[in-house]
Amino acid sequence: MKISFLAIGDELLSGRVAEANGKYLADQLSLSGLEMKFMLLAGDDAQEIITAFNFLQQDSETIIVSGGLGPTPDDLTIEVFAKYAGLELEFAPEIMEKIDLRFKLRNLATPAANKKQALIPKGAKIIPNPLGTAPGIEAKFQNHFFLFLPGVPGEFKKMVDDFVIPRLRELASDKKSLAVKTLRTYGLPESGIADRMSKIHFDSRLKIAYLPELPEIYLRLSALLKDQTEALQIVKTGAEQIKAELKEYVFSEDDEPMELAVGKLLKNRGLTLATAESCTGGLLAKKLTDIAGSSDYFLGGFITYSNQLKTKELGVSAELLEARGAVSDEAARAMAEAARDRSSADIAIAITGIAGPSGGTRDKPVGLVYIALADKKGAWSQRFQFLPWSRAAVRELAAETALEIIRRRILGLRMPGEKS
Amino acid sequence: MKISFLAIGDELLSGRVAEANGKYLADQLSLSGLEMKFMLLAGDDAQEIITAFNFLQQDSETIIVSGGLGPTPDDLTIEVFAKYAGLELEFAPEIMEKIDLRFKLRNLATPAANKKQALIPKGAKIIPNPLGTAPGIEAKFQNHFFLFLPGVPGEFKKMVDDFVIPRLRELASDKKSLAVKTLRTYGLPESGIADRMSKIHFDSRLKIAYLPELPEIYLRLSALLKDQTEALQIVKTGAEQIKAELKEYVFSEDDEPMELAVGKLLKNRGLTLATAESCTGGLLAKKLTDIAGSSDYFLGGFITYSNQLKTKELGVSAELLEARGAVSDEAARAMAEAARDRSSADIAIAITGIAGPSGGTRDKPVGLVYIALADKKGAWSQRFQFLPWSRAAVRELAAETALEIIRRRILGLRMPGEKS
Repeated sequence: MKISFLAIGDELLSGRVAEANGKYLADQLSLSGLEMKFMLLAGDDAQEIITAFNFLQQDSETIIVSGGLGPTPDDLTIEVFAKYAGLELEFAPEIMEKIDLRFKLRNLATPAANKKQALIPKGAKIIPNPLGTAPGIEAKFQNHFFLFLPGVPGEFKKMVDDFVIPRLRELASDKKSLAVKTLRTYGLPESGIADRMSKIHFDSRLKIAYLPELPEIYLRLSALLKDQTEALQIVKTGAEQIKAELKEYVFSEDDEPMELAVGKLLKNRGLTLATAESCTGGLLAKKLTDIAGSSDYFLGGFITYSNQLKTKELGVSAELLEARGAVSDEAARAMAEAARDRSSADIAIAITGIAGPSGGTRDKPVGLVYIALADKKGAWSQRFQFLPWSRAAVRELAAETALEIIRRRILGLRMPGEKS
Repeated sequence: MKISFLAIGDELLSGRVAEANGKYLADQLSLSGLEMKFMLLAGDDAQEIITAFNFLQQDSETIIVSGGLGPTPDDLTIEVFAKYAGLELEFAPEIMEKIDLRFKLRNLATPAANKKQALIPKGAKIIPNPLGTAPGIEAKFQNHFFLFLPGVPGEFKKMVDDFVIPRLRELASDKKSLAVKTLRTYGLPESGIADRMSKIHFDSRLKIAYLPELPEIYLRLSALLKDQTEALQIVKTGAEQIKAELKEYVFSEDDEPMELAVGKLLKNRGLTLATAESCTGGLLAKKLTDIAGSSDYFLGGFITYSNQLKTKELGVSAELLEARGAVSDEAARAMAEAARDRSSADIAIAITGIAGPSGGTRDKPVGLVYIALADKKGAWSQRFQFLPWSRAAVRELAAETALEIIRRRILGLRMPGEKS
């Protein structure tokens, strides 16, 4: 079955808001062996919405539409669809009751604006929305299924999980199984990976996509076949072939973020970790604690943004900060050692640098970052000069590099800056 | 001029990767008074790419295409366009030279895979790519301009800024001026805002979009007119009308994130801030330090993820943690007071809670968060029960709420939980 997605909203085309529902839906379709054909974004404009319906109907049997179901005047989706399909709008008292109840629970009267949400095209079915006032709608037009869902991401996701995926699996006739495996790599450029991979003879039914998520590159292996066991085997073999060629550059075979790969390493070896951050200001600790269960190995961290706190909390001497500066090899080492000693963690990692956009000098330009690691064996440190694309990019690269350093230290691999 | 955007890549339709270039381009077009018509995502498939070209040509004069210019075998864009437009591919030695140079600088031989990047359709112009190997291409077909750019976000953005926007402004004939103002609100539901706004009589040329970015809702006001001064005035008046109605619920008139609005308040009043985080694990400090110049008011923070560090670094007594638990009003207050005293900051804010997905109990379910603030006037604290949609959502809501609490405390506004 061919499925396409349409997101409606001026805010998506003006660039104010990033459309995120399509990615979630595509992910869930993939996991169910269903395929997304096109994803289209159109504005809050009746004529554009109709053009979009027309285009997507050509190639797709099912069209999933997100947005424009709200109570405000720019929400047009249902009205336009009814006109497009030549269907009358009817008042659905069961929707109104639920809306009234939601407001009653908050001791509020239903705002007048919400009343239009109870109007649905004749013959359409209601898709329950447990999290908001806008219900979803399923309608059929010219042998095409249209599923309308609210654009609010939390509501959209819940309804995709609870209703859309089961419904599409029910409607799909040619049930194929998709096997997927995503290898994540760090440290090789895309073309370097491609060159190494060109030496491998892969099964012709294996599909490989390169996904640069700088500084990482992911390799997504997939096979879509009637026979599930065969699809799984093809993907498994492909992953083994790639691992044999790319070796330690593959840090995860299960599409795991670096912070999870590092977390697992720490957990499996019974090691604990602490952080000391200056320019990343908590980003590294935030990444580590994005992982559920990180309290098993992450003890905590020090965000010593001011020099005063570097001295007071981490004992980095005022003389050192004066002589070498807060962005220096010596300061990074002192931070890492103090974080290790104060937290009693097995490993401590410290980051100090110039995230920009201002604050750079000729000797210490924006993007200069020192990362240090201290463990029982002693301290290690290295200078990095990241491309100063943006403050966010420098911070992101510094935090990712710190994670890679922890990984390499635990595994005893060559550290950045060391000769091979 | 009508402009549409096409992003090409299987990874976008499989849900593995979120398409982000379209949003950036749309943003830049908006700011230049240019309008995006449709944004479309298609897979790495020749037939689908051609279907996409056909659709977008109907309604748009200029089509900007992202992705599929890389060195790997799934990169088809230029090949397919040449076939579609009936143009031969020619070898461009000046591209090859630049690619060779990039590899030479890294002491590498150019991988064989990169050679196909030097093939361009006959008559096309090269758009320089200062950051990567894939050049951009400008081609004309049937009176439509096609601009092809690499999909790597850093490269795409740089080329949009340096080349695409100036080129489109050159090509555009009906130059209108767009005036935009985005008000950000916190604390009212969408329909509550709509009801209050329905009392206002706005200029009919003012366009208002509701952008829910939960827990915030943004209101984007815009006017697109020949006369720039008039457009600006319409938007300015609209913003004043809304502010008079929504009052303190508007926390920024300049589309600023809460962390910037709070940062400006701190800076203008000469106040300093410190954080103490448990369940958010550095997310709040990360947000605060996302802002360039935050070192003017943000001193640093304590991430006391383990109970041991809560006791050792913040002096939260082991007895208190035993009797009331780490997720308790008392623990939050003790953390905030200690962070204030240890850092000598004017204001300290502490967060402790259960982010989930596990770790919840009947008395202390996932989503339960205590937030405390300590300043010279004393300590304040409050219990919050957030909907446990996900670990990320609980952490995000906790951090956002903490920022709103700082804002309300500084401004002397009613605090959460206080009667109005």
